[in-house]
Amino acid sequence: MIVVLKNNPNQKQLDNLIQWLNSLNLDINYSQGKETTILGLIGDTSAVDIDLIAALDIVDTVKRISEPYKNANRKFHPEDTVIDVNGVKIGGTNFQIIAGPCSVESEEQICSVAESVKESGASMLRGGAFKPRTSPYAFQGMRDQGIELLLKAKKMSGLPIVSEIMDLSQLPLFEEVDVVQVGARNMQNFELLKELGKTSKPILLKRGLSSTLQELLMSAEYIMAGGNGRVILCERGIRTFETATRNTLDLSAIPLLKTMTHLPIIVDPSHATGISKLVKPMAMAAVAAGADGLLIEVHNDPVHALCDGPQSLTPEAFQDLVNSVNRILEVLA
Amino acid sequence: MIVVLKNNPNQKQLDNLIQWLNSLNLDINYSQGKETTILGLIGDTSAVDIDLIAALDIVDTVKRISEPYKNANRKFHPEDTVIDVNGVKIGGTNFQIIAGPCSVESEEQICSVAESVKESGASMLRGGAFKPRTSPYAFQGMRDQGIELLLKAKKMSGLPIVSEIMDLSQLPLFEEVDVVQVGARNMQNFELLKELGKTSKPILLKRGLSSTLQELLMSAEYIMAGGNGRVILCERGIRTFETATRNTLDLSAIPLLKTMTHLPIIVDPSHATGISKLVKPMAMAAVAAGADGLLIEVHNDPVHALCDGPQSLTPEAFQDLVNSVNRILEVLA
Amino acid sequence: MIVVLKNNPNQKQLDNLIQWLNSLNLDINYSQGKETTILGLIGDTSAVDIDLIAALDIVDTVKRISEPYKNANRKFHPEDTVIDVNGVKIGGTNFQIIAGPCSVESEEQICSVAESVKESGASMLRGGAFKPRTSPYAFQGMRDQGIELLLKAKKMSGLPIVSEIMDLSQLPLFEEVDVVQVGARNMQNFELLKELGKTSKPILLKRGLSSTLQELLMSAEYIMAGGNGRVILCERGIRTFETATRNTLDLSAIPLLKTMTHLPIIVDPSHATGISKLVKPMAMAAVAAGADGLLIEVHNDPVHALCDGPQSLTPEAFQDLVNSVNRILEVLA
Amino acid sequence: MIVVLKNNPNQKQLDNLIQWLNSLNLDINYSQGKETTILGLIGDTSAVDIDLIAALDIVDTVKRISEPYKNANRKFHPEDTVIDVNGVKIGGTNFQIIAGPCSVESEEQICSVAESVKESGASMLRGGAFKPRTSPYAFQGMRDQGIELLLKAKKMSGLPIVSEIMDLSQLPLFEEVDVVQVGARNMQNFELLKELGKTSKPILLKRGLSSTLQELLMSAEYIMAGGNGRVILCERGIRTFETATRNTLDLSAIPLLKTMTHLPIIVDPSHATGISKLVKPMAMAAVAAGADGLLIEVHNDPVHALCDGPQSLTPEAFQDLVNSVNRILEVLA
Repeated sequence: MIVVLKNNPNQKQLDNLIQWLNSLNLDINYSQGKETTILGLIGDTSAVDIDLIAALDIVDTVKRISEPYKNANRKFHPEDTVIDVNGVKIGGTNFQIIAGPCSVESEEQICSVAESVKESGASMLRGGAFKPRTSPYAFQGMRDQGIELLLKAKKMSGLPIVSEIMDLSQLPLFEEVDVVQVGARNMQNFELLKELGKTSKPILLKRGLSSTLQELLMSAEYIMAGGNGRVILCERGIRTFETATRNTLDLSAIPLLKTMTHLPIIVDPSHATGISKLVKPMAMAAVAAGADGLLIEVHNDPVHALCDGPQSLTPEAFQDLVNSVNRILEVLA
Repeated sequence: MIVVLKNNPNQKQLDNLIQWLNSLNLDINYSQGKETTILGLIGDTSAVDIDLIAALDIVDTVKRISEPYKNANRKFHPEDTVIDVNGVKIGGTNFQIIAGPCSVESEEQICSVAESVKESGASMLRGGAFKPRTSPYAFQGMRDQGIELLLKAKKMSGLPIVSEIMDLSQLPLFEEVDVVQVGARNMQNFELLKELGKTSKPILLKRGLSSTLQELLMSAEYIMAGGNGRVILCERGIRTFETATRNTLDLSAIPLLKTMTHLPIIVDPSHATGISKLVKPMAMAAVAAGADGLLIEVHNDPVHALCDGPQSLTPEAFQDLVNSVNRILEVLA
Repeated sequence: MIVVLKNNPNQKQLDNLIQWLNSLNLDINYSQGKETTILGLIGDTSAVDIDLIAALDIVDTVKRISEPYKNANRKFHPEDTVIDVNGVKIGGTNFQIIAGPCSVESEEQICSVAESVKESGASMLRGGAFKPRTSPYAFQGMRDQGIELLLKAKKMSGLPIVSEIMDLSQLPLFEEVDVVQVGARNMQNFELLKELGKTSKPILLKRGLSSTLQELLMSAEYIMAGGNGRVILCERGIRTFETATRNTLDLSAIPLLKTMTHLPIIVDPSHATGISKLVKPMAMAAVAAGADGLLIEVHNDPVHALCDGPQSLTPEAFQDLVNSVNRILEVLA
Repeated sequence: MIVVLKNNPNQKQLDNLIQWLNSLNLDINYSQGKETTILGLIGDTSAVDIDLIAALDIVDTVKRISEPYKNANRKFHPEDTVIDVNGVKIGGTNFQIIAGPCSVESEEQICSVAESVKESGASMLRGGAFKPRTSPYAFQGMRDQGIELLLKAKKMSGLPIVSEIMDLSQLPLFEEVDVVQVGARNMQNFELLKELGKTSKPILLKRGLSSTLQELLMSAEYIMAGGNGRVILCERGIRTFETATRNTLDLSAIPLLKTMTHLPIIVDPSHATGISKLVKPMAMAAVAAGADGLLIEVHNDPVHALCDGPQSLTPEAFQDLVNSVNRILEVLA
């Protein structure tokens, strides 16, 4: 961390600052220029509050040099993390497709989708039981019952299942869910993240609608700091001024995150675009950009899906997507 | 709601659509043009999933005419809502200033700030016990103990208190807290909103960093649909490309929300700008734009504040702000 | 265009509106519901000012159904436009890579880069003579002399050349330039667009930093309305809250634009990301998403490039990119 | 400027860097820490290309300490600039309202508006002759003839006139125009800015839709570097994800710009919001935030305005706005 002081700082305030920094076990590299004095703080600065220092009268600017995330940082963990989800590996050289409907609606629906996507090449099943909906009057998911149906589909198909948690209090229901998803709106639900950090479950952490990549990694850090290193990151589009697509899928996040962290990164082109015909080209692009996996919405009857219909694929369209993605993967191998 | 059909729609699909719409108790106004066919849906469309209709093959576009929020809608409740917080009224012609430190740090601190802001003209005390921090390594608030200290300051000063809840599980601790704040990062924590809707506590609902005004009202609607109509909205800046201020304070939200809803609207210039010297001019601007109140960060020793120091005011600066705000209020009266 | 009227509209104002709409040669489909009256405007509404109608007292909302662009619209021109640039075809099934330095710096530099990128597989040479720089104190390009050097490189290498125009007054200098580039900051320089519409030169039109896809097509329409249909669109990143990359490359723009327009669409991953190591993965992703071409910054000595060095590739890195892109193209064929 | 080197930098590359920096007349303050080496560059760094240094292999990060603008910088010009427009002073303690229609439409229209706004308290007349419209099919302004009509209105009313230039080639027509406006879409039309810098005309420079405050000042710097210091800045809303208003008016820009620059800053609430009923509250808020003036759209018959009708005020509404603004001004005095 570098602290640039204003010209002619008050000596007493400067002494106070230096004393306080020393109390945080930081060494100070003091560099006096003609017009500018610079303090280089050496040591573990991840707990230092950058805003606090910036607020001091004698300080002009502060700049963090080392990243504020440690467990998620590739610098301290150069090799790719591979996460084993009930025998299905993701990360490193292991690419996986997670597919399924937005919402679980019935046993017949979830089981038939499970069978269909498995046959097409998906290795995990997704399905929403608890649904975060903007309107209190929209369908909120089948909740407990939805989890039960997912577990039936898991048993039937043998696919590990992925489902979204919306509140701490739902955690007991997720005991047999293989991957717990934290949605974009909960990416900074810090109490939830802390609790998930105490479990040993793989967590699929979606990027918030207006979250920077650093904030995404800080949220992963919340989980990892609690002892759970099994975090899968998911890019799912950010909110911008453009309204032609529901969100703007930020694919440059993939190669950039790869340099910042060792965690696997998957992409959700269905929610990002909100338009079914864009799902395949964006899935292919995500794979070409280096994604470790995809999260794809598939429904046996898109028109009657109870939510997010416009973006879900038919089983036929999903099979076509998998074929195209596989051809891209061969090129990259 | 208006549904514009594509040219030459498949008759069977059209019949299905009309049958389904009728099953939702909607009347349909069918208008056949030379090139375009338009369905006008008449009745309560707040529960209709607009995305679902848009997904149909025969549909070109769908447009909602009536707003999807009812309880919060000024159309159905033309008069300003006035909320009584332990004798302090906000909304309508009642303007209030809520002030206090970002975090509760000690009994001495919170009590001295309480006394000071009361004397300067604040009518409620704010103070954070549970703090949503981007980093797991930053100070997370005094939590239970912080609430206790706030209650002491309440008793001492007589000021109603406002504090932020971060998770459902903390609700029992807020029994004597007068106003429960839902922070920007939790604006779409729908499980929390639903639970708060079952209480009778005034809720201070902050706009999310990337939330539209309609989404803010839909979150208020979650609380109100549960039976709790005592919601105070708070504009606190949105995330944009501009990094010179922490967020971009959207003051046009005030007069616009006034036309959309009957709920009181306050402004938090401290968090919005993140720069203490901007707090006073933006507070004055907020009042001139018609805000029903202000949320101001005040600290007895800004430099040593454990969080958000750069944006908090000294007691002297706060007094100066109150004086200026009062002069603006006189002009508006 | 659909006009939704407010309840119980003033009859005289309504008569005025209908009379005015008729004077624009529009037929009106009048649909009276119980609560809502809807006017469907039939005919060529591209010249109708939607804001003007929305301003009327009796109007609730207005919605455009047909797109406001005609020449650029795929509806009226279903086949892909193929543009022939001095024998090099782009669009349809023709994929091309345009490469070269950000700025022309010397004859030796531009000629050696031209030879190198040609050998690697580029089919056009780019080079900036006029440079739009944020600071008046930064290098502004070699200007007239830069164009001369580009023409030498063209003659030497046989590659068609692409260069950016910054003002109408520079047009005479571009007589032998094969493709005239309009930069992101000039996408809505309407006087320039109109003048380019009177030429027969291929125009490479870059999307503005905060321009929607519809605005991009409206700018293309300015050129095409003048008689010049040879427009190549270029996605080069939009401005969002994320600062980890210089801009956010919006690759979903490619498949979406393909449905809206028949014009070729290329991608500039160099400017979009501003980070050289992201150029190759984003180039591959752009191709997988369906781009008709790439615009890649290549320099013989990136460290000493006079501008935009951080994003340019060495000739070796460019060769590697071309090889990877070709493998993706084979998959798509 | 501070350059943070990577650990164990290649000595030869470091020597090259230092030699190059010295060639730019910069002194180097070399500070070697245990893990980090920092170079402090002392001298005039406004012409140093920060991206170029950041691109070097041995460099970790670069940070500018001093601002890249000089002429516009308050540090070097602590007193407020007051600009005299034909006897009407703006800046410092001088507040002015510029009012008039979006477009000049006829002699009768512009003259009657001029008379009306003058009587209400406006001190300058605005009117568009050249109109930047998104669509080539929309009304483009009366152009040369519009300027002539403005000059008639100037002669009749005695008010100085403000009008927008869209291209260099129009400059001769602006000889008798008192203030030349550069619109948001031309804020980075650098060739135009350079040419305006050679004139002695007051320039009203509008902030671009996605421009940072620093970029706005860099564009002012283009004009000032040419010798013309008479620049009036204008905040007119930025583009964000929120679509309830046309743009998001960033009022915190006013007090922040006041600390960065000595130039006068005015606000255009009409274009920013695009909604006439928001113009008055936002005008009042702008004044409370410290604006030096307002730019208000007024029309004698808003419904029939040829462009931007929804945001313009009737003469009566404008009189009401002026009265309210004057009461706020009295408070601030």
